[in-house]
Amino acid sequence: MKDVQNEKDSRNIYLHQVGIRDLKYPVVIRNGEGETYPVTAQVGLFADLEGDQKGTHMSRFVEVLTQHNQMDLKTIRSLLESIRERLEARNSFCRFLFDYYIWKKSPVTGRESYLAVEVEYHGALRDDELDFRMTVRTPVTTLCPCSKEISEYSAHNQRAIVSITLRTDRYIWIEDVCNIAETAASCPVYSLLKRPDEKFVTEFAYDHPKFVEDVARDAKLLIDEREEMEGVQDYVVEVESMESIHNHSAYAKVEGVRV
Amino acid sequence: MKDVQNEKDSRNIYLHQVGIRDLKYPVVIRNGEGETYPVTAQVGLFADLEGDQKGTHMSRFVEVLTQHNQMDLKTIRSLLESIRERLEARNSFCRFLFDYYIWKKSPVTGRESYLAVEVEYHGALRDDELDFRMTVRTPVTTLCPCSKEISEYSAHNQRAIVSITLRTDRYIWIEDVCNIAETAASCPVYSLLKRPDEKFVTEFAYDHPKFVEDVARDAKLLIDEREEMEGVQDYVVEVESMESIHNHSAYAKVEGVRV
Amino acid sequence: MKDVQNEKDSRNIYLHQVGIRDLKYPVVIRNGEGETYPVTAQVGLFADLEGDQKGTHMSRFVEVLTQHNQMDLKTIRSLLESIRERLEARNSFCRFLFDYYIWKKSPVTGRESYLAVEVEYHGALRDDELDFRMTVRTPVTTLCPCSKEISEYSAHNQRAIVSITLRTDRYIWIEDVCNIAETAASCPVYSLLKRPDEKFVTEFAYDHPKFVEDVARDAKLLIDEREEMEGVQDYVVEVESMESIHNHSAYAKVEGVRV
Amino acid sequence: MKDVQNEKDSRNIYLHQVGIRDLKYPVVIRNGEGETYPVTAQVGLFADLEGDQKGTHMSRFVEVLTQHNQMDLKTIRSLLESIRERLEARNSFCRFLFDYYIWKKSPVTGRESYLAVEVEYHGALRDDELDFRMTVRTPVTTLCPCSKEISEYSAHNQRAIVSITLRTDRYIWIEDVCNIAETAASCPVYSLLKRPDEKFVTEFAYDHPKFVEDVARDAKLLIDEREEMEGVQDYVVEVESMESIHNHSAYAKVEGVRV
Repeated sequence: MKDVQNEKDSRNIYLHQVGIRDLKYPVVIRNGEGETYPVTAQVGLFADLEGDQKGTHMSRFVEVLTQHNQMDLKTIRSLLESIRERLEARNSFCRFLFDYYIWKKSPVTGRESYLAVEVEYHGALRDDELDFRMTVRTPVTTLCPCSKEISEYSAHNQRAIVSITLRTDRYIWIEDVCNIAETAASCPVYSLLKRPDEKFVTEFAYDHPKFVEDVARDAKLLIDEREEMEGVQDYVVEVESMESIHNHSAYAKVEGVRV
Repeated sequence: MKDVQNEKDSRNIYLHQVGIRDLKYPVVIRNGEGETYPVTAQVGLFADLEGDQKGTHMSRFVEVLTQHNQMDLKTIRSLLESIRERLEARNSFCRFLFDYYIWKKSPVTGRESYLAVEVEYHGALRDDELDFRMTVRTPVTTLCPCSKEISEYSAHNQRAIVSITLRTDRYIWIEDVCNIAETAASCPVYSLLKRPDEKFVTEFAYDHPKFVEDVARDAKLLIDEREEMEGVQDYVVEVESMESIHNHSAYAKVEGVRV
Repeated sequence: MKDVQNEKDSRNIYLHQVGIRDLKYPVVIRNGEGETYPVTAQVGLFADLEGDQKGTHMSRFVEVLTQHNQMDLKTIRSLLESIRERLEARNSFCRFLFDYYIWKKSPVTGRESYLAVEVEYHGALRDDELDFRMTVRTPVTTLCPCSKEISEYSAHNQRAIVSITLRTDRYIWIEDVCNIAETAASCPVYSLLKRPDEKFVTEFAYDHPKFVEDVARDAKLLIDEREEMEGVQDYVVEVESMESIHNHSAYAKVEGVRV
Repeated sequence: MKDVQNEKDSRNIYLHQVGIRDLKYPVVIRNGEGETYPVTAQVGLFADLEGDQKGTHMSRFVEVLTQHNQMDLKTIRSLLESIRERLEARNSFCRFLFDYYIWKKSPVTGRESYLAVEVEYHGALRDDELDFRMTVRTPVTTLCPCSKEISEYSAHNQRAIVSITLRTDRYIWIEDVCNIAETAASCPVYSLLKRPDEKFVTEFAYDHPKFVEDVARDAKLLIDEREEMEGVQDYVVEVESMESIHNHSAYAKVEGVRV
């Protein structure tokens, strides 16, 4: 059976990425202590393609994925190496987007429930160099310092998303990234709050008013300072508040290098 | 050229709806005074299909749409009649989803800006009877009465969407439906607020705490009472608050008949 | 601490549904043989609310969910009973939306991979009567009979989604619903196909041209005939083809009662 | 009234972008001949923020937008200059995402209809240097060369999106970018096709089989060669085929510099 993809291509145009996207697949995430969590991931797998080859072999990406279903830093390298090898490519890339669950206690009554955070892994293997980035998107509360200051009473507040992207060559706990986002915000959010908890988070947010600018800056400081962030090379913090007084979002972004 | 769709179908299964969906198309909305607004609509057009006919003629839906691009109650009837005729159907259906803009003044400084609301038209022509429903989704602020009551100070508040669906045979102004949603909520939202406006909406929301249950009930009362709602037959009010202390929404729904 | 929700409400307006939506939560699905699958679900939980009560107690929905995390027909009844009891309601409702994975073999080479299908559970408990519906959305291929007939060669084909909603009081296998969708279509889709498989599905689809109308009708026939569908009361089949020659979808819907 | 945003910030952290996002607003697009089209845009407006200033003034972004509602290269510069001035910033940024309609004739019968394409404008003003990029996402058909080659008859085909991003300092017609995408693909798509048109596009696609890799390469060649693309500096072409035999997409990306 003819292998059209393997034919010579006369246009001689190098393609930076070729592969598959938007594949929903069951994947197992492994944490820093080797524990595993089954998740449903939206997967992208890519390789580059030399200018003289007509096409890549799309089915091999899925074959490699099916053989590497446990995700951590080590297995992502091995997944990317397999892609490079099977596709005869120089560079390979992967992207996994999934919901991860944090088991949280409410602040006063200690009731436990899960909070979903969105996590994205980006891996790139270029000339044997692994470039790994992890994005964690944590929902939080922000309460507006301006609204608090100028009003006789109360202040507008809202749900916000803190998106922290870390480039790293060491394992970083998702829980630790969430904690930075929650510490930098006016207050964490929870799936389950009883009335004494609700009183607490209402007052706590009012006592910690934060613009998106403040959340971005405080998250940056925490990434720079906290021991758990050792191994982070550079990073981006984005904060988006779904303003309760508008139908649009307030946004702040800061980039940084950890030294 | 053979007309496969026109062939006899031996399965003899009547199809309730056949047609096209997810067509993005430019459409002109006409208001109660005959003024027109160009919008981008997501369009669905459907007809029923007798059991002995193999298929409908999908291209005719687009032809009919291209000939009926001005939308109000009268033209929707004429659009549905054309579909029924061109498709040789008993019943015809349409759905238009679009963003509509309300020109609003901020409450204190009077600064003007547009607020987008989502509008959906549902039309059905069955045996010459037009069934028309209009949904208007208005963003508002809700402020939690429980949080206000139990906390020493402040209260959690957030953006919410009030979705009002009206079955009617008379023209109802989109602006009047929005106004009901905004009146029933803790406070309206605006695209543009200066500091004196922000002070006003912060305090106004605190002075009008509302659960999603309260917003649904007050919207129901306003639909029943207000003169501008004459011609409304039955209706559904749904309220969804994107809770600022959770990562999920609070929701309330009430159905009603206007007498 | 004051219980604002428990206060008397003078408006005396009954609310059909009050509760929480868009909660992402880990849930365990149990199949017909008692095997369990962890999934990530988008959850909605609701109860009705009497006219004289100001508000529901939102946190109790999450408490009940945390105690009922294994989903099948029996546990959904018990979840709905708990909601009704904890919220002192007459009726209770739930909705779970999740991706489920089918382990499939490619048709010629027998390579195995997962295919994601979207599943939705709708439960309602009204006056002790459980109303349970299950929707399964299966991706398939459709190949246009008209295009095949009128063209010298080839035929346009595309990915389509067959959405089958079954009302039932017996356990129905997700796999059996998918199989009906795939049998009714021009060809199933797979995550992993090698070249002999690709040749097979290309030719198979061409040998089984189907309009969305045909897929809807054939799925209806299979639901009526197949033994595995015993216990189905009524149902809706919807088919949406993401047409490869248009930027919109073709759509067909049929409703039925199984006798 | 106190201006909290204007306070000194002791953390001394420069923020790369601060502003508003996800604002839906009516905007007027101006084409190369000065004709105007009203569209509904999803808008983002941003400025940078010095390390010693506590916050930006979010409402000014909306004020500036309301004063600059006609979008072309010149007015985007003037919008960005106004943002920089009003926000006392060094750099300013904007993003507009909207649907644009191309009036197309079907290939044989000449029937006319609109085709929606998604357009994104990205503007950045850094130290008086305007950096403008335009992305046009055109739906097309791709037909798989491998499937055609290995099968006795037919070939799988599907809708694909060709996304072309051009950095430029001259006006480029959206229509010209679409035309490149359509020329590079197996066949254009249309909203309205009669049977002779359908025969034509079915056979045309079969006569022009293209992998996503081929579409990317041919689009690149056309950007490099076509006169209408003069003024383009560098560019990215991305192609995503919503495979009809899978539930995921095939993807190719190429970057280039026009000389």
